[in-house]
Amino acid sequence: MFFEGSEKKAEIVVNTTKISLLDHIEDEFWVALVQCCNAQILSSVKNEHCKAFLLSESSLFVWHDRFVILTCGNTRLVHSVEFFIQQIGMDKIQQVTYQRKNEYFAHAQPSSFGDDIKLLGQYVAGKAYRFGELDSHHNYIFHQDNNFRVNNLDKIYEFLAYQISAEASEKLTTAGLKSAEIRQFLQLDQLIGDFLLDDFVFDPFGYSVNAIKGKYYLTIHVTPQANSSYVSVESNMNLSELSERFLAVLAPKSFDLLSFNDFDFVNLMAGFIPTSYVSKSRVSERLSNNNLVCFANYILPQQDFVKAKAFDIAGENHAL
Amino acid sequence: MFFEGSEKKAEIVVNTTKISLLDHIEDEFWVALVQCCNAQILSSVKNEHCKAFLLSESSLFVWHDRFVILTCGNTRLVHSVEFFIQQIGMDKIQQVTYQRKNEYFAHAQPSSFGDDIKLLGQYVAGKAYRFGELDSHHNYIFHQDNNFRVNNLDKIYEFLAYQISAEASEKLTTAGLKSAEIRQFLQLDQLIGDFLLDDFVFDPFGYSVNAIKGKYYLTIHVTPQANSSYVSVESNMNLSELSERFLAVLAPKSFDLLSFNDFDFVNLMAGFIPTSYVSKSRVSERLSNNNLVCFANYILPQQDFVKAKAFDIAGENHAL
Repeated sequence: MFFEGSEKKAEIVVNTTKISLLDHIEDEFWVALVQCCNAQILSSVKNEHCKAFLLSESSLFVWHDRFVILTCGNTRLVHSVEFFIQQIGMDKIQQVTYQRKNEYFAHAQPSSFGDDIKLLGQYVAGKAYRFGELDSHHNYIFHQDNNFRVNNLDKIYEFLAYQISAEASEKLTTAGLKSAEIRQFLQLDQLIGDFLLDDFVFDPFGYSVNAIKGKYYLTIHVTPQANSSYVSVESNMNLSELSERFLAVLAPKSFDLLSFNDFDFVNLMAGFIPTSYVSKSRVSERLSNNNLVCFANYILPQQDFVKAKAFDIAGENHAL
Repeated sequence: MFFEGSEKKAEIVVNTTKISLLDHIEDEFWVALVQCCNAQILSSVKNEHCKAFLLSESSLFVWHDRFVILTCGNTRLVHSVEFFIQQIGMDKIQQVTYQRKNEYFAHAQPSSFGDDIKLLGQYVAGKAYRFGELDSHHNYIFHQDNNFRVNNLDKIYEFLAYQISAEASEKLTTAGLKSAEIRQFLQLDQLIGDFLLDDFVFDPFGYSVNAIKGKYYLTIHVTPQANSSYVSVESNMNLSELSERFLAVLAPKSFDLLSFNDFDFVNLMAGFIPTSYVSKSRVSERLSNNNLVCFANYILPQQDFVKAKAFDIAGENHAL
């Protein structure tokens, strides 16, 4: 069974003198927005700063001045972005960012990044960049090119783990696994015990959790199946402590780090990444909206020979 | 400008008591066969053992008992295989092997490996394997599962270089470059000076060469453009000496080695790969047709930060 864990992501910042996304928009709007990319809202939690929706495919976070949405699988997130633009109007929007990671199964996606930003281009003039090599892990980032400037205090971190250890994959694909067991496995109580948590265990496996505390958010999405395993962690908190723990627990063969506005990225990496991992790619770019984006891909060198993976010829899904 | 250099490959072995592919098949047949995947024959050379066709997309080699065809770009090679089976008949065929490398632009391909072997499955019962991780370089290999056993003396080597150095890419994309200059750059005179060569420089760039000597063949295909550069070398000679030279000349950020029936693969690698390269993946499998297949992917660790790659939003081709 295969599932594309890799997410598309959009962030839209609005002008709060014209609209507050928390005060002026009803939940029905968000229900409709996520339906535009064929996802559904499963549950939500909120505090005074933020409302966090857990989706059938990943997550949506809404603050007064912005929202961030991540969707995985075969969703076409750009349709949700288009819906927002059409409903709210570009006059209230200050900045649109659209991001897409490389996929395990690019050929099974309904669109490419190029297709997506071609559609976005009907509404938003912008620039786009690729972080990372084409034949390896990479992120595409499109951003609106206008007079809006990002506050460099607004930091975002992404930790993306690929090919987690056989032990972690087996544990996380255990039949009937409860959310409490997954929280324990990921050590969430120790790491974010004071956060408000909202999580979901998918059938037959897969796990999502949203966590909020004040203005901080953290979201984790786990696609645990062997061969195409993927665990993403995203937060506006510095992820170095969490990433160190997750590296130890998941032991991925490869992982990516992505940061927005961390001006000490090199020392961030040096501080927690074991020397057993090797840096395959490092990219840094200051976008015209003032965002400093850093990307790094690490691998765990392999000396031992493994057997080839049998391909399920008779299987309905030929992506593997 | 983007071009998918990564090849699909097929090898078909026939029963020479029933047919000789050199003696009993006219060139018109091969013209029609390559047309089935939308490629054309550009030129050919031959000796008593082998006829080598240079194609608009890669190469075709024909011996008495087998042929090997490689095609790159957006060709759908499986249609050529289907043509051969339909025209010649499975009763004269001893073994069908179909191989496909990961692509830079999988979403731009007309089919996936799964689609291809689903079609093949209408004619041939077989098994398929993946060598290498899904989120990194990998090769899919399908082979007919019958009573045919490969002779372990029949060795094949593939050396696949990705992300060649900026210097090599610039040299090989020089306007008006002549084949003699590319031969010199690749040091072909020193390496295979006693081979019969047939080469072609594509417009605006790109280079293919077929080389034969007795029963030996060697073919090189160069897709030199930055970001999606790819150089493939395939031969039934041991490639260690050539690969060592090509590594020095091309300085790729990553390369794959694939061997069929090299029972000393570990020492082969140890013998020529500089310690600056790190082993990312190693796979070995004895197929039921007796082929021993070994795969290894190496990377050159990167410490320096590079700038992000601008994405051509207005461009017609959105794959980059």
